[in-house]
Amino acid sequence: MPHDIINTRVSPMGALEVLSRAEVARLLDLGHDEGLYRTFRDCALAVLNCGNESDDGKELLRRYPSFDILPVSRERGIELAITGAPASAFVDGEMIAGIREHLFSVLRDVVYVGDEIRSNGKFDPSTSAGLTDIVFRILRNAGVLRAADGVRLAVCWGGHAISREEYEHTKRVGYQLGLRGLDICTGCGSGAMKGPMKGAAVGHAKQRIEGRYLGFSEPGIIAAESPNPIVNALVIFPDIEKRLEAFVRVGHGIVIFPGGAGTAEEILYLLGILLHPQNARLPFPVILSGPKSAEDYFRRIDAFIGQTLGARARSRYSIIIDDPERVAREMISGLERVREFRESRRDAFHFNWLLSIDHEFQRPFIPTHENMAALDLRAGQPEHILAANLRRAFSGIVAGNVKADGILEIERRGPFEIRGDAAIMRPMDALLASFVEQKRMKLPCREYTPCYRITGGA
Amino acid sequence: MPHDIINTRVSPMGALEVLSRAEVARLLDLGHDEGLYRTFRDCALAVLNCGNESDDGKELLRRYPSFDILPVSRERGIELAITGAPASAFVDGEMIAGIREHLFSVLRDVVYVGDEIRSNGKFDPSTSAGLTDIVFRILRNAGVLRAADGVRLAVCWGGHAISREEYEHTKRVGYQLGLRGLDICTGCGSGAMKGPMKGAAVGHAKQRIEGRYLGFSEPGIIAAESPNPIVNALVIFPDIEKRLEAFVRVGHGIVIFPGGAGTAEEILYLLGILLHPQNARLPFPVILSGPKSAEDYFRRIDAFIGQTLGARARSRYSIIIDDPERVAREMISGLERVREFRESRRDAFHFNWLLSIDHEFQRPFIPTHENMAALDLRAGQPEHILAANLRRAFSGIVAGNVKADGILEIERRGPFEIRGDAAIMRPMDALLASFVEQKRMKLPCREYTPCYRITGGA
Amino acid sequence: MPHDIINTRVSPMGALEVLSRAEVARLLDLGHDEGLYRTFRDCALAVLNCGNESDDGKELLRRYPSFDILPVSRERGIELAITGAPASAFVDGEMIAGIREHLFSVLRDVVYVGDEIRSNGKFDPSTSAGLTDIVFRILRNAGVLRAADGVRLAVCWGGHAISREEYEHTKRVGYQLGLRGLDICTGCGSGAMKGPMKGAAVGHAKQRIEGRYLGFSEPGIIAAESPNPIVNALVIFPDIEKRLEAFVRVGHGIVIFPGGAGTAEEILYLLGILLHPQNARLPFPVILSGPKSAEDYFRRIDAFIGQTLGARARSRYSIIIDDPERVAREMISGLERVREFRESRRDAFHFNWLLSIDHEFQRPFIPTHENMAALDLRAGQPEHILAANLRRAFSGIVAGNVKADGILEIERRGPFEIRGDAAIMRPMDALLASFVEQKRMKLPCREYTPCYRITGGA
Amino acid sequence: MPHDIINTRVSPMGALEVLSRAEVARLLDLGHDEGLYRTFRDCALAVLNCGNESDDGKELLRRYPSFDILPVSRERGIELAITGAPASAFVDGEMIAGIREHLFSVLRDVVYVGDEIRSNGKFDPSTSAGLTDIVFRILRNAGVLRAADGVRLAVCWGGHAISREEYEHTKRVGYQLGLRGLDICTGCGSGAMKGPMKGAAVGHAKQRIEGRYLGFSEPGIIAAESPNPIVNALVIFPDIEKRLEAFVRVGHGIVIFPGGAGTAEEILYLLGILLHPQNARLPFPVILSGPKSAEDYFRRIDAFIGQTLGARARSRYSIIIDDPERVAREMISGLERVREFRESRRDAFHFNWLLSIDHEFQRPFIPTHENMAALDLRAGQPEHILAANLRRAFSGIVAGNVKADGILEIERRGPFEIRGDAAIMRPMDALLASFVEQKRMKLPCREYTPCYRITGGA
Repeated sequence: MPHDIINTRVSPMGALEVLSRAEVARLLDLGHDEGLYRTFRDCALAVLNCGNESDDGKELLRRYPSFDILPVSRERGIELAITGAPASAFVDGEMIAGIREHLFSVLRDVVYVGDEIRSNGKFDPSTSAGLTDIVFRILRNAGVLRAADGVRLAVCWGGHAISREEYEHTKRVGYQLGLRGLDICTGCGSGAMKGPMKGAAVGHAKQRIEGRYLGFSEPGIIAAESPNPIVNALVIFPDIEKRLEAFVRVGHGIVIFPGGAGTAEEILYLLGILLHPQNARLPFPVILSGPKSAEDYFRRIDAFIGQTLGARARSRYSIIIDDPERVAREMISGLERVREFRESRRDAFHFNWLLSIDHEFQRPFIPTHENMAALDLRAGQPEHILAANLRRAFSGIVAGNVKADGILEIERRGPFEIRGDAAIMRPMDALLASFVEQKRMKLPCREYTPCYRITGGA
Repeated sequence: MPHDIINTRVSPMGALEVLSRAEVARLLDLGHDEGLYRTFRDCALAVLNCGNESDDGKELLRRYPSFDILPVSRERGIELAITGAPASAFVDGEMIAGIREHLFSVLRDVVYVGDEIRSNGKFDPSTSAGLTDIVFRILRNAGVLRAADGVRLAVCWGGHAISREEYEHTKRVGYQLGLRGLDICTGCGSGAMKGPMKGAAVGHAKQRIEGRYLGFSEPGIIAAESPNPIVNALVIFPDIEKRLEAFVRVGHGIVIFPGGAGTAEEILYLLGILLHPQNARLPFPVILSGPKSAEDYFRRIDAFIGQTLGARARSRYSIIIDDPERVAREMISGLERVREFRESRRDAFHFNWLLSIDHEFQRPFIPTHENMAALDLRAGQPEHILAANLRRAFSGIVAGNVKADGILEIERRGPFEIRGDAAIMRPMDALLASFVEQKRMKLPCREYTPCYRITGGA
Repeated sequence: MPHDIINTRVSPMGALEVLSRAEVARLLDLGHDEGLYRTFRDCALAVLNCGNESDDGKELLRRYPSFDILPVSRERGIELAITGAPASAFVDGEMIAGIREHLFSVLRDVVYVGDEIRSNGKFDPSTSAGLTDIVFRILRNAGVLRAADGVRLAVCWGGHAISREEYEHTKRVGYQLGLRGLDICTGCGSGAMKGPMKGAAVGHAKQRIEGRYLGFSEPGIIAAESPNPIVNALVIFPDIEKRLEAFVRVGHGIVIFPGGAGTAEEILYLLGILLHPQNARLPFPVILSGPKSAEDYFRRIDAFIGQTLGARARSRYSIIIDDPERVAREMISGLERVREFRESRRDAFHFNWLLSIDHEFQRPFIPTHENMAALDLRAGQPEHILAANLRRAFSGIVAGNVKADGILEIERRGPFEIRGDAAIMRPMDALLASFVEQKRMKLPCREYTPCYRITGGA
Repeated sequence: MPHDIINTRVSPMGALEVLSRAEVARLLDLGHDEGLYRTFRDCALAVLNCGNESDDGKELLRRYPSFDILPVSRERGIELAITGAPASAFVDGEMIAGIREHLFSVLRDVVYVGDEIRSNGKFDPSTSAGLTDIVFRILRNAGVLRAADGVRLAVCWGGHAISREEYEHTKRVGYQLGLRGLDICTGCGSGAMKGPMKGAAVGHAKQRIEGRYLGFSEPGIIAAESPNPIVNALVIFPDIEKRLEAFVRVGHGIVIFPGGAGTAEEILYLLGILLHPQNARLPFPVILSGPKSAEDYFRRIDAFIGQTLGARARSRYSIIIDDPERVAREMISGLERVREFRESRRDAFHFNWLLSIDHEFQRPFIPTHENMAALDLRAGQPEHILAANLRRAFSGIVAGNVKADGILEIERRGPFEIRGDAAIMRPMDALLASFVEQKRMKLPCREYTPCYRITGGA
């Protein structure tokens, strides 16, 4: 079926309105950097395609084969010339304002910020502090860090392909958070990423609050999880690790809804950081929440964590089933502790400088077959290092499930091999099996073929 | 089952923040005017009860028997002391901001404005111009008339007890209107009054527009149709006629969704005005719209209008089934004609002064058994006069169905008698019968006992 | 010499943008009410003539004989059609925005508010509370009463025909008040009315404060004391008594600069109120201030007060010579006491309800020869009543000096006779003689012929 | 006489509120870079000393010997710890807001921006485009470039030690510019730099315009020309050439008031640029204006330009004596041509990219005795190159007159030698002699000893 398309030109907004000639020249030059151009184009198409469910970027490109987007010189700066764009991004021929905003967020983060970071000698990506500095600069440049906003940003994680019942639950939780004045930050996309924002938007409207809806994405995932135009601050990070670091540096607390392997990855990432000895006394509210039907899902994750990372890991989160109001009330009291802690330590509200993030969690992990096979999943490691490695294993599985590159790899070379001690691999195998059984590994409508093979679980 | 209640005090917002001593004294005196106090209290309870479905005010008072609300003297002005209020209006003990705003809208319109109008010698309710002036003053005092807002207010009418499918349709239409920058004005309550606002709110958010959601109510209906807190400009008119006049004076176009007798009443009111000879060339877009399942409903109304009021009446509206985008596009082009007309006639955008409303439509109609029986429903009258009388007949039926006073009357004296020529009464009987059959006469879950008996239809 | 004139039309701003048809009709009818029309026209001309020194309104009308101004019907409301206006009110043919704002303040206060007050049955000018209510309503309608503004409005009084040195002193005091965040309220005109505003404007700019410059005038004085366009809230009161009451109800403290008989009148008015037994414990900072050269002026007033009203009267003010910073610091600490007092008594910040103003001070005093002769200026009266009568005597002298009507009366019937006990009349005679000697009775460039004759001073 | 001093700490505003840890560390390290620290401290003291006339920085440091200022670590960022600051910068112990703003502008431009420019590999100061890019970045970082502001920024140049009559003239011109909605940009300091801003502030207030008052300074001149706190956008450029480029890139037109050698330098700089062949058709209104008493001053400059640079140079400016309104009207019509030109060439309004500035004008000129002696002042050069060299000669004379370094040089090594063709040197000698005679070479109260000796004029 041919899809309706539109050709147009759009003018920049915000930070990109006032550019120097040199900056304009560099942006116009974008077409000559093949890799950068492709990243920019793919992210732009994902943004324009919002609202249309899609599981991978390949499919998206097949659907809009003529799609193209490039900066062109215009009066006093640049414009984006767009061809073959999904008609759904337009109303009576005019691009929806929120989508236009997102397009320029993509340009800002993928092209402009990238260029600034590369050319500025002060950024040292080889150190932990240097990487954190990059995350900080991307966030500040996007206008996300606001000194006066206080402690009220709730990050929501969870799957994008969840059941209707689970989706309604995320909306109800979002509504209760919004009624209490909390802003929402998610990873964009549908499901548990969209529900809390929609719910919070209603809560904010009733409280006459101008809410903030932050969406953090990265080039590899944005096609599968395109940002809803309600997101009024979209930031695209260069890789998944910086995106994850951004969540925990600007979020004051986290609610985790049901999902699949990606959600498990996020939980492991979070625990890995919170289990770092230097973070032992740092308050950070984490609440796992779902409707009655998701109780089993969380019990299994809880069991897996208990078996692999132990009791201290379990003490860093609470599980609240089918009670959105209680989720919101516990989050509020958790945030109060965060506020007190930051004040006593004289730390900023807008960026969690005191949180120690091991370099292990910051370095990009490329889920090749080799890297997956080389993961150290033996028992006896320090908890936070084991968590880091477990999270990488799940990261690879997510890539094999939904990311364009990962899917291609699996198609070419077969499933990843994951090896480790039985004490680790057995619970992992059981958890993944439960995900498959609960149809949590991909869009519910398709048959799932595992992209991994576990060794050592026997 | 006992309902959760809360006692509290709330401070005024907006216009009531700066009051003179004399004004404070008059507000504090409210408790001594039994009728005024009851109206105020009932409206306040309706506002506090929003979100909880209820069909009549009597039931509401039974549910919150200890409810009381009165202005009390406080530092620099007044406060409202509230006891026995529905807990659902509060979040963690604090009243939801939107509901608090509505409470003070009630105080402003029911008590303060009433007092101003009574004591100001310039208002002459015995003339058409005087009544229009009162409507204007109420609207201006509520901050609704804004010279710079342009032509973009779409009024949405329809039933509050509609099917899920119809409700979803109203949301989709509201979304398309909101995407195109239109503000929404409804009569408050659930169903077709709430759907367009919720849809428009999403459209506005995507377009980064700060939308206006106007709710027009009146004491007799507010308990059954309590305002959703999304409404950010609530106005309570003294009676149904001023409320209807407000809709057509500030609305630039009207979308009518499926409903029951109330919706028919509104259509007849509108046609009665538009058929007035002096309004013959005045553009006023009217669109009847519903999902596929509502097609029959609108066809029957269309037939009834053709049979009783004729072809000219039918030419004043269009019917669009199952196509929200087309509704929005036709509304936009209709509003463009309204804008051109107002500019060419040098009329205000914010108030439709050029619209002639016959005094017949402005005088309150009290649906007693006597008044209902005395309605002139003979053929051969001027179209707009016949429309006025037909609308009164439906107004009485609505009162008998859902208004506290009307229900009481029917309980005491049996159904209303409605008489007229067969050429009028037969189509009317048929239309009402179709409403009953389609379960459009009351909340769908209850058995309907007609509150009327038609004579002359044979 | 012929004066440059301009004909134009201007559109309304603010409150008069949204008018009802009835209101428009009443404004258009203005031309038929000779007295009201003349008041409106004279005030409008005074506003348009700002910046050009003039001592009386008669002269002004002679200079612009073709001047005319009337509301005319226009698209969606009214316009003001103006002919023969002073060209100095325009820049390249366009009226200066501040002057345009003032014109509509005149229309609002002289025509619209007047009409509202006359037609609204709730205003009872026969009682003290009724008159205060009218003052309150005029101020609120002008947007002057703002609940959130705190305690920071300094009223500045003093002469409009003062020496350069005195004028520079008023600027320096205004500058110090502005640096400390105080807003300024004066009676419009030049000299001590303009200096503090100009000084405060610089202070506000340096502190990045958006200052408020309130100008309170009345039809009889506005020609002689036309408002500087810096005034960003101009209010025209119906008579001098309501204007004076407005000063003491909204001002939190008062600085009095050198002047002539008018300044003495204001001091007596103020003392009369503050000496009222019910105001004995009410804090109200009053500071008399001038440069070194004005020391003698204040010493003589101080002596006169001591001789006529006694020590308690003298305790209600302090005199600070040649020290603007000290004036500002004492005002700030005085305002702090006002703030504490209002909070402890739960009185509004924006209107001094607790201040008792005797009806004597509120009733307009018409300085006819008869009324002047009938003034009770005997010793032995309660202090505040004597102060009231003394202030009337000075009020008459001011009228005879500068007001169009008063000057005409004196021309026709010779000087006023003022009679009283020697203990009162002797100091009064001495004080007035010192004013004449110091050239404080009229514009310094003209010879002064007394408009009064004192009897009983012997 | 000991001067009152104050010790305090102040918090950052604006851009410096949200800093990364690395940025805070670099700012805290400021004390270890002796040169940078001294520049920062000297600029900060100049800013704090505003309002107190002073001709050189040396004197200033002598007056406040204990003055010190350094960033210190504080909750969530930095603070400035200040000791020995002039008490005149404070009101009741609190720093004046405008001065505090300026302090952080100094920190931003001297320390932060300097660091950014040094560490960012993209800035190439060896090319003309690279230097322009640096000027652009400094301006954008200071929030000066606003795409929506239109064509309305008038730059005002002239001396800071001018007569009362000349000063009043600059105020009157500023007033007329302000009445017409123009914003003002000057080089800070008193005299012709302050007058236009004060005048414009009154004009803006009357027109209800929120005016912008841009002050462009540089470390070498800020002590002698400290910014008035009315300046609401202070930018400190690294050197005089970038400052001059900023004036002509963001200013839409220029008014030049009387001054001395510095003013002549500015006129020559401007002509040098406008005479560049590529700028031949570029509209750029330049008006030389003064009171009657300054007519001779401008006639002599005009003659000098005619004799050295020729008729084409003279055609690029007009001279308007004693007519502030005409200055404003001609500026307005000149700006209209600028607007049309930019639109037709699709150039930005906020930055004059199309203006060609020869690299000669951008490279810093250090007025050593050697450099002054080596200046090529022969006839027969292209006009714009000759203008560049003449401007350097005057630049050196200004340095020798008022800049700390220059004065020291002259004290050590005697006056500069300036050599050239008689056709150039004779008019130059005559012009400088007229400046000395008119007491325009230094503060009028002191005796002037020339800092130069002209050779070749014979």
